[in-house]
Amino acid sequence: MLKNAFYAQSGGVTAVINASACGVIETARAHSDKIGTVFAGKNGIIGALKEELIDTSLESSETIAALKHTPGGAFGSCRYKLKSLQDNRAEYERLIEVFKAHNIGYFFYNGGGDSADTCLKVSELSQSMGYPIHAVHIPKTVDNDLPITDNCPGFGSVAKYIAIATMEASLDIVSMCASSTKIFILETMGRHAGWIAAAGGLAGKTSEEPPHIILFPEVAFNEEAFLDKVDTSVKQCGYCVIVASEGARYANGDFLADSGATDVFGHKQLGGLAPTLAELIKSKLGYKHHWAVADYLQRSARHIASAVDVEQAYAVGKAAVEFALAGKNSVMPAITRLPGPEYAWHITEAPLNQVANVEKFMPREFISDDGFGITQAARDYLEPLIAGESYPPYRNGLPSYTRIVGQLVAPKTQRSFDVN
Amino acid sequence: MLKNAFYAQSGGVTAVINASACGVIETARAHSDKIGTVFAGKNGIIGALKEELIDTSLESSETIAALKHTPGGAFGSCRYKLKSLQDNRAEYERLIEVFKAHNIGYFFYNGGGDSADTCLKVSELSQSMGYPIHAVHIPKTVDNDLPITDNCPGFGSVAKYIAIATMEASLDIVSMCASSTKIFILETMGRHAGWIAAAGGLAGKTSEEPPHIILFPEVAFNEEAFLDKVDTSVKQCGYCVIVASEGARYANGDFLADSGATDVFGHKQLGGLAPTLAELIKSKLGYKHHWAVADYLQRSARHIASAVDVEQAYAVGKAAVEFALAGKNSVMPAITRLPGPEYAWHITEAPLNQVANVEKFMPREFISDDGFGITQAARDYLEPLIAGESYPPYRNGLPSYTRIVGQLVAPKTQRSFDVN
Repeated sequence: MLKNAFYAQSGGVTAVINASACGVIETARAHSDKIGTVFAGKNGIIGALKEELIDTSLESSETIAALKHTPGGAFGSCRYKLKSLQDNRAEYERLIEVFKAHNIGYFFYNGGGDSADTCLKVSELSQSMGYPIHAVHIPKTVDNDLPITDNCPGFGSVAKYIAIATMEASLDIVSMCASSTKIFILETMGRHAGWIAAAGGLAGKTSEEPPHIILFPEVAFNEEAFLDKVDTSVKQCGYCVIVASEGARYANGDFLADSGATDVFGHKQLGGLAPTLAELIKSKLGYKHHWAVADYLQRSARHIASAVDVEQAYAVGKAAVEFALAGKNSVMPAITRLPGPEYAWHITEAPLNQVANVEKFMPREFISDDGFGITQAARDYLEPLIAGESYPPYRNGLPSYTRIVGQLVAPKTQRSFDVN
Repeated sequence: MLKNAFYAQSGGVTAVINASACGVIETARAHSDKIGTVFAGKNGIIGALKEELIDTSLESSETIAALKHTPGGAFGSCRYKLKSLQDNRAEYERLIEVFKAHNIGYFFYNGGGDSADTCLKVSELSQSMGYPIHAVHIPKTVDNDLPITDNCPGFGSVAKYIAIATMEASLDIVSMCASSTKIFILETMGRHAGWIAAAGGLAGKTSEEPPHIILFPEVAFNEEAFLDKVDTSVKQCGYCVIVASEGARYANGDFLADSGATDVFGHKQLGGLAPTLAELIKSKLGYKHHWAVADYLQRSARHIASAVDVEQAYAVGKAAVEFALAGKNSVMPAITRLPGPEYAWHITEAPLNQVANVEKFMPREFISDDGFGITQAARDYLEPLIAGESYPPYRNGLPSYTRIVGQLVAPKTQRSFDVN
C-alpha cells in the first residue's frame, strides 16, 4: 500500500508559499504510482496534532494550479513551535501516532528555521519509534534568514514589493518636496535581519538617488549620525527617503520601536518604528514628514510577485517530493546560485541539521561603510531575486485568487489532543 | 504667431497625473499648426510665479510617451493655493505678466478643487486685463471629490490598489487567525471623503467576507458600535479586517487620529489612525492586531494602476487641449458615465464655476445601513473604475519610469517674484 504524505505550512505566510504547496501536490500527483494522498495540516502543524487533515485529493487540478498565483497560506498556518523533545515528547509522539493512523510516510514542512528543527526531530523520533518517516523541509521565509540556501522563497517577492514601493513613493515625494513634505519613511518587516529593508536600496543606483538611508537591524542605530544624514540629504537633494527595518535597534539591542522613545511631550511613543523616526526627525530637524507601514501588504503582494521567486517556490516544493521519493530524509531543497555573469540557479540538497536554528544575517560587506546603504555586492545578490513579473489572472479588476474546499478526512486515532 | 501653452500640476500627485500631462503634450504636438510650445510649471503654479518654465519641446517623444506609465508629478507640484483676488491680486497679475511675456494663450491646470478655482480666476482676470487666456482645468484627485465629473483621474488607481491590498492582506490574516493575529487595520487616504476607503469594500462580496468594517469620514465614529462589530466579526469569522479612512471622525468633527485619544497608560496616542484603532481594540477587546498605513504607496502605485484610470487621465489631458483649440474657456473636461449595463463613458464639458470649491462626498445610499460597509449601488459605481491592468514596462525587475530633462526657458519678465 502506497504511503501517503503530510504537508503543512508554518509561520508567517508569503506571496508564494502556496506555489510551494502547488509544487508538492502536483508532483505527488504526477507520481501517483509511488505516493498516495497528500494530506495538508489545517492551520499548519496544529492540524496534525489535532488530527485535522485536509484531503487535497478532493481539490481540483484547477484549484491546485491556481495556488501558484494565490498569496497567503491556503491550508492555514500557525506559529506553533513544538517544544524540545525533553520538554514535550508527547507532542512528537502524537505526530507519529497521527501519521501512522493515516499511513503517512512523507512529511513536508514548509517554513523557516523553527520548522526545520521540528522536521528534523520528527524524522529522528520516527526512526526510534519504529515508524520511519521521510521528513523534508521546504524553505519559506520573507526574512531570507535560512542558511545554506542562497535565498528563501518568499523573499524575492517582498524584496520586489519594497523596491517598487520605495521607487514609487520617492517619485511622489520628489514631486512636492520643494514646498512641502521633505521626509518619507517606509517601515519594512525584518525583526532580526535587514534583507527586506536592503531591497529598498534597489530603487536607486547612486547615493544621490532615493532611498538615502536604510536602517538595518545589523547596524546599531546612531541617532546623531542618522539625523546628520537626514539633514544632509534634505540640503543636498531637497528631500530624504528612509527605508527602515522594523528591527532597527540601539547598540544595547533595544528596538527603536519599543525602546521607550518619547515624544516632545515626554510621553512614551507608541505605534511602531516609522512614527517614532518621524517624530524624532520632526522634533530635532523640524521637517515635514510622511510615513508608511507596509506590514502584511508587503508579504501578501502576490500582484507584483517576482517571477524568479514564484519559480523557485514551486521548484522547492517539487524537489521536496522528488527527494522523498528518492529515499532522502532530513533534508531541505536549497537554492544554489551558479557562478557566472548571468543569474542561474539549481536545487541542491541541504542536511537539516545544518539548517535548523541557524539565522543568516546581512553580511557586513553588503552594507555600505556608513551603515546607511547597500553595496554593489548586495545589489549583485539582490537584483536577480526580484527579476520578472508573474502576474496573477484578473477578473473585474481584481486578482482571481483561489480558495480550497478544505474537506477534512475522518479522524482515526480515537482520541483528542490538547494543543496549548 | 502661435500662442504657447502653460501646463501645471497641482496638489498631491497620483499614479496617473503624468498620463494627463502626456495627453496634453502629445495632443498639442499633434496640433502644432495651431498651438506653440507647451511650457510646464516647475513645481506647479509656483513655477509660473517664479517664471521657472520647463520647455517641454526639449523632451523627446519617447519621454513624453513614457509619462503615461510614470507615477508622481514629473514637472513637480505644490500645494500652493492662490489667495483670493481681493487678498492678493498681485499674484494673479504676476501670472498674467509671465504668460504674456512667454506668449502663452492657453492655461491648463491639472488638479483638484482649489486649482479649478485658480483656473477660473486666471481666466476672468486675464479678460479684464486685456490679455485673454483660455483656461482649462484638468481634473485630478485621488480623493474623487470633484463635482460634475463622474469620477476623478487618479482615484481609479488608488481604489484598485486599496481593493487589492485589502484582498491580499485578508488572505494573509485568515491563514493564521486561528492561533495568532485576529485584527488587521488598513489606513487609507481620504481626509474628508470616504471614496478610497470604500474601494476596500470591493475586496469582498458578502458581509462575511473581508473587509468586515469600513470607516468613512461621512459617518460619525461610534466606539461602542465599532467594538461590537469587531467582536462579532472575530467570533463569527475568526478575524476582522478593517479599512479605515484617515478622515474617520467623531460626531463633533474631531478626527480619531488626533482627537487626543489616549493609550491604556493615559498617554496621548501619536502616530495616526491605524495605531489608534489598534490600541483601542487591544485595550477593550484584547485581540492581537496588525496594521498598515499605505500613505504615499497608495497614490503612487503605478505598478498596479487601473487601465480605465490611465485611459481617462490621458483623455482629459487630450480633451483639455481640444477644448482650448475649439475656443472654449473656463471649462473642465468631465468624465460622464453613459447609461446601460456595460460601463461606458465619454468626455463632456463642465463649466468651471460649477466645479470650483465644491466637494463631492460619498452619498448615503453608497454606505450600508450600519455605516460600516458599502452597498450594491457603491459597487456598481466603483467596480468599472478599477477595471483592467495597465502595467508599466520593466527592466531588471523594476518599472522603467521616466524622468524629464526639465530644461527651463530663459526668463523674460526682468524681475523676480517672492512666493510665500
